[in-house]
Amino acid sequence: MPQKLLWINARLGEAAGSTGPLQDILVEDGRIAAIAPALPRDGAGTIDCEGRLVTPAFIDCHTHLVHGGDRTQEFEMRLEGASYQDIARAGGGIVSSMRATRALDVDGLIAASLPRLDALLGEGVSTVEIKSGYGLEIETELNMLRAARKLAELRPVRIRTTWLAAHAMPPDYPGGKTGYIQDVAIAGLERAHAEGLVDAVDAFCEGIAFSAAEIEPLFARAAALGLPVKLHTEQLTRSGGTLLAARFNALSVEHFEYATAEDVAAIRASGTVAVLLPGAFYMLRETRKPPLDALRKAGVPIALATDCNPGTSPVSSLLLTMNMGAVLFGMTVAECLDGVTRHAARALGLAGETGRMAPGMSADFTVWNAETAAQLVGRLGLNPMHSRVFQGTVTHD
Amino acid sequence: MPQKLLWINARLGEAAGSTGPLQDILVEDGRIAAIAPALPRDGAGTIDCEGRLVTPAFIDCHTHLVHGGDRTQEFEMRLEGASYQDIARAGGGIVSSMRATRALDVDGLIAASLPRLDALLGEGVSTVEIKSGYGLEIETELNMLRAARKLAELRPVRIRTTWLAAHAMPPDYPGGKTGYIQDVAIAGLERAHAEGLVDAVDAFCEGIAFSAAEIEPLFARAAALGLPVKLHTEQLTRSGGTLLAARFNALSVEHFEYATAEDVAAIRASGTVAVLLPGAFYMLRETRKPPLDALRKAGVPIALATDCNPGTSPVSSLLLTMNMGAVLFGMTVAECLDGVTRHAARALGLAGETGRMAPGMSADFTVWNAETAAQLVGRLGLNPMHSRVFQGTVTHD
Ligand SMILES: [Zn+2]
Ligand SMILES: [Zn+2]
Repeated sequence: MPQKLLWINARLGEAAGSTGPLQDILVEDGRIAAIAPALPRDGAGTIDCEGRLVTPAFIDCHTHLVHGGDRTQEFEMRLEGASYQDIARAGGGIVSSMRATRALDVDGLIAASLPRLDALLGEGVSTVEIKSGYGLEIETELNMLRAARKLAELRPVRIRTTWLAAHAMPPDYPGGKTGYIQDVAIAGLERAHAEGLVDAVDAFCEGIAFSAAEIEPLFARAAALGLPVKLHTEQLTRSGGTLLAARFNALSVEHFEYATAEDVAAIRASGTVAVLLPGAFYMLRETRKPPLDALRKAGVPIALATDCNPGTSPVSSLLLTMNMGAVLFGMTVAECLDGVTRHAARALGLAGETGRMAPGMSADFTVWNAETAAQLVGRLGLNPMHSRVFQGTVTHD
Repeated sequence: MPQKLLWINARLGEAAGSTGPLQDILVEDGRIAAIAPALPRDGAGTIDCEGRLVTPAFIDCHTHLVHGGDRTQEFEMRLEGASYQDIARAGGGIVSSMRATRALDVDGLIAASLPRLDALLGEGVSTVEIKSGYGLEIETELNMLRAARKLAELRPVRIRTTWLAAHAMPPDYPGGKTGYIQDVAIAGLERAHAEGLVDAVDAFCEGIAFSAAEIEPLFARAAALGLPVKLHTEQLTRSGGTLLAARFNALSVEHFEYATAEDVAAIRASGTVAVLLPGAFYMLRETRKPPLDALRKAGVPIALATDCNPGTSPVSSLLLTMNMGAVLFGMTVAECLDGVTRHAARALGLAGETGRMAPGMSADFTVWNAETAAQLVGRLGLNPMHSRVFQGTVTHD
């Protein structure tokens, strides 16, 4: 590939409904060097976008993509009326994925995960967050993040890893929740951090998982290690985890359906992103929507992600997720696009690196067989990707 | 290709949850000749399915796949609160697709439709029903079906065409609904039939379209021509079209959310398939579900289809449609699979030709990177197709 490449006649769709002139994008050494109409051609190779829509590459900022097994049998149970809590109490749910994940080594986890990753990349995703959280003992939790790191060597993608040992209590654990947080979540975090495996720390704050008070020592340790935190919270009930997350200046809070006005005010003050996960909302046939109007009014950045996981959100498509954000939550097309680009970047601490078309940013973008962002969000089952560019290199066309 | 081909070690998923022995499938001259464990190899070439799930090829028995333009701008209007009826009254809806469709010739219609068809085929669809209905004047209605017929020459797919001139009233039509039915829907049908373009006749029975009484002369003419009928009915209100359809022994009634016990009894007696369209239900954020329990109790065959159209169901995926049938309507995995195979075949009058794995049927099947039908229905955005067989020939692998 030439080090200097000029993409001409791009319809920039960062702001939905933009109807300005077509733009040229100069890429140098993997970064966007300039964007303007009719840039000089001086010596750069050119690729003609022919008026196609060009968006920042998508970012899936919340996934459990690395795991063993699937839970499609439980899908049938839920259809027959069992709740998420019922399944968890019956020893299914996360525990069933725990067993399937523990049964795999790093290579097995990679093999199980690649089809899901490839599905995301095939729709123009450049960056994927991947959480641990199905090992629920230290060695498998480490293996999950080792597999996640390895995926970035096997595919043209930026991976951000998140330590989520505090995802659920393993059923065989003798020491209680406080003991688990100390001896597995925190002790494992030290090892994972020493091995360079961790970019952020997450937990599941919910009656069926951990309370805010139980999670606090883990977040304190993350802060001491200089690691940012995130939190699954206010999904099935109002657990109060948001206030904890805000105190630790969390990068993001996730799900957020049962959040209150106090929660919205707290994350506004802490600069935390609200990551909405409509796939889980859809699969669980939930009816309580996240407080979209309050978030808008407060100016809280809203991201959208697949929550790709084997149970409650077996979703490997950000195009579908954007559609669900619009149809199920009422997000506008512009909000959906921002939710999988710049706000998703911010939820990963990558706002200065990717998620926007601007000079200095990594040249991560997608050329679409489409003219408007509404054509990406408003159709289902059609993948109009024309070509995918990651760090300046065309990886799919 | 050899004329005799033996597919070995197939996990037949026709009946969901089937856990019997792996089967071999003998294909001769494009048809299934035998299915049994360990068939003799005598001279046939073999392909090893390696224990993979094999299902009948999918059948999308209700689409408006041939059309011009898209209505993703109206998608944003609906997000902002406009109803389907509001949009129709504002000159949008079908009328906007009418203008975009009239602007294209047959080649233009084909070019616009191929990406949607290819998306379906890429998930193992063998057979697609395609309706006219965006011309709303004879020449464009004919062009839509000419394009549909041509698609079957351009791709390895079986196309069934449906005359749906009675889809909506064109806004510029001087003669009223009765006049339109006579002078466009019926007069055009005669021409289309003479040209060999029509396999069935459909109409939209709804307050915003045509009443049962207005549709009756069209159905009478279809019957006189020996053509089977179908009907879009009971979608937004209880229009009463089902009783008309049953009197004409319709192949199918479509949507069916507002159907009554009387309607279910009528189609039970007439042997009519209920075609459910969860994509439109989802996109319109409807809450009234079709009477699934009553249909089950009556033993009415239930099909599922994309309703692929530019406005209310811009869906090009039967995998997604099956998932919506399960999640939104509560259909079981077996019902979803039957809904896109054998019951869909029946809705097209093709029950003796395709949609089942049985000796004598066309060898239309899909090999999946999956073990159970629940893995097809219970995941989103992942396409596990391994290979696609149409009339005995491998078309995708
Ligand atoms: Zn999650
Ligand atoms: Zn329709």
